[in-house]
Amino acid sequence: MKLAELGEFGLIESIRARAHCTDPAVVVGIGDDCAVFSSPNSGVTVISTDLLIEDVHFLRRAVTPKDLGYKSAAVNLSDIAAMGASPRFALLSLALPADLDVSWLAEFQSGFLGLLREHNTTLIGGDTTRGEKISISVTVIGESVPEGVKLRSGACVGDLVCVTDYLGDSAGGLRGILNEIPSNESLSRLIQRHYRPLPQISLGRFLASRKAVTAMMDVSDGVASDVGHICRQSKVGAVINVDLLPVSPDLALLCSQFGWDSRSLAATGGEDYCLLFTVSPDGLSDIQSAVQKEGGAELHIIGEIVEEKRGVEFRTKDGESISMNETFSHFGVNG
Amino acid sequence: MKLAELGEFGLIESIRARAHCTDPAVVVGIGDDCAVFSSPNSGVTVISTDLLIEDVHFLRRAVTPKDLGYKSAAVNLSDIAAMGASPRFALLSLALPADLDVSWLAEFQSGFLGLLREHNTTLIGGDTTRGEKISISVTVIGESVPEGVKLRSGACVGDLVCVTDYLGDSAGGLRGILNEIPSNESLSRLIQRHYRPLPQISLGRFLASRKAVTAMMDVSDGVASDVGHICRQSKVGAVINVDLLPVSPDLALLCSQFGWDSRSLAATGGEDYCLLFTVSPDGLSDIQSAVQKEGGAELHIIGEIVEEKRGVEFRTKDGESISMNETFSHFGVNG
Repeated sequence: MKLAELGEFGLIESIRARAHCTDPAVVVGIGDDCAVFSSPNSGVTVISTDLLIEDVHFLRRAVTPKDLGYKSAAVNLSDIAAMGASPRFALLSLALPADLDVSWLAEFQSGFLGLLREHNTTLIGGDTTRGEKISISVTVIGESVPEGVKLRSGACVGDLVCVTDYLGDSAGGLRGILNEIPSNESLSRLIQRHYRPLPQISLGRFLASRKAVTAMMDVSDGVASDVGHICRQSKVGAVINVDLLPVSPDLALLCSQFGWDSRSLAATGGEDYCLLFTVSPDGLSDIQSAVQKEGGAELHIIGEIVEEKRGVEFRTKDGESISMNETFSHFGVNG
Repeated sequence: MKLAELGEFGLIESIRARAHCTDPAVVVGIGDDCAVFSSPNSGVTVISTDLLIEDVHFLRRAVTPKDLGYKSAAVNLSDIAAMGASPRFALLSLALPADLDVSWLAEFQSGFLGLLREHNTTLIGGDTTRGEKISISVTVIGESVPEGVKLRSGACVGDLVCVTDYLGDSAGGLRGILNEIPSNESLSRLIQRHYRPLPQISLGRFLASRKAVTAMMDVSDGVASDVGHICRQSKVGAVINVDLLPVSPDLALLCSQFGWDSRSLAATGGEDYCLLFTVSPDGLSDIQSAVQKEGGAELHIIGEIVEEKRGVEFRTKDGESISMNETFSHFGVNG
């Protein structure tokens, strides 16, 4: 069956049925003019939104609807993780071609709602409309306490710059897809990392709870660009050692097979959706052992915060300064 | 200058500069991973989102960017009005063609932010990306108290059905635009009503405060369809007297000039963005006089709530039953 036959109200009803909300904080869910939820006592509300457009952020023929649904939720949950908050509610707006099959939507929802459910996040509203191309707008709402959120603006000179996972896997997976490289075990793991990034909610909450962590964000544009965001907002500079950018064995293998530059993929590839944070040096070892005790992510030191006038420098382990194209942009000519 | 030259970060910066947030409830505004705001004490948060797509909801050549910005804010503010809540914060996501002129964006923002400001609503976040066609996703967040929100589901048999403004003006204006009718005074007022609907925030808040008001929503799909929403969710039926649908002198004039059916425009045209509510008959006169004392809108009784099994009937003043195409849909073949 095509979406046009289902109609807008049938579509909303099908979404409402799948979302089956049982959250007591939801006063009004899908189906009224607004969703209504009760506010956490003495807390703050955090909110993030992303707009994904067919042929800009994804190719319909290359991604399964289930993965696309998953990723649409993941990129927003990752923003909530980056604040150290807990996700609670989501809104989903879809513009869809009228001749799209209803099964596409069912699969999309399954991926989207599946990940929300893993993170105790309830779909409470959204919008549906026709569109020649698929547009997906997701908003995720989370909770925290005022002193519990970590911003991009708190980095201090002398802090270490860390990331919480390998970098470049997602970009490597995407390159494999776009170049139509025959799949192998390593590539399919990278493709998995591209389509199904893991939002680091618990780790974000843990890091945000530590005073020694001074700034935090998630790596979406590529770490080179994202370090720049922290530096601009903290009015500091940074020296990043590109040989310390953590590269997975899978990515290293593909890079050697196809002559790709792993440093450049790790620095500028983007869509890693791990966390990037700055931390005062005397606080790091405590944090590292606590994270390891939880069996969690490995933390990788990739550089240091320096004075603002030095800007963001990229150096090799031999101290050689190299230039990184940090202008990944969802908009400009480099997009 | 084209948007591609401005780049994503230039674009975000230009939006941040114009939004100049001074709201003490905003802990973090535009520019971090999430926006953060403090929650109202013991209140509820209401939230609504709309996705507007070029060539589905608007034609770029037919609407000025300023009007489009205004309307993008208005349709969401109207949803907040429909709950009886107060708008507080907004998110704006835009997908824009790279060759769009920067002046287009400036005009759009001027219309969008201008209306937000009138309603003490602060832009706190959003997303920007490339897109072949313009996509606009707006989310508005408002505040209320649990007992202060009016839903679609409270209508009772015997209630009167009322609207708070003329119906069909917006649809008449749109028909004038699409048929390229040479403008005259009446038509330009209708076009104004199409592009610059007035979200009835204060009136919504007032109506929501009255116990006698049992259900409320805003008229966006057309009153025939919207009465159906209230009936479905309240498990009641309704008899609507199509001769009581309030038609403005401007629309009446154009209908007589061009042979349009004013009843059908009023019933099914949509995008009126006034309020539709049900009220117990003994409470209406109090409400009417209070509204008139404030110099506010006129309330128009258009029908009555009946038992569910009767469904939604449309009758002329002579009691003749007529069928109304109530299937306006943003999605299906009637969209």
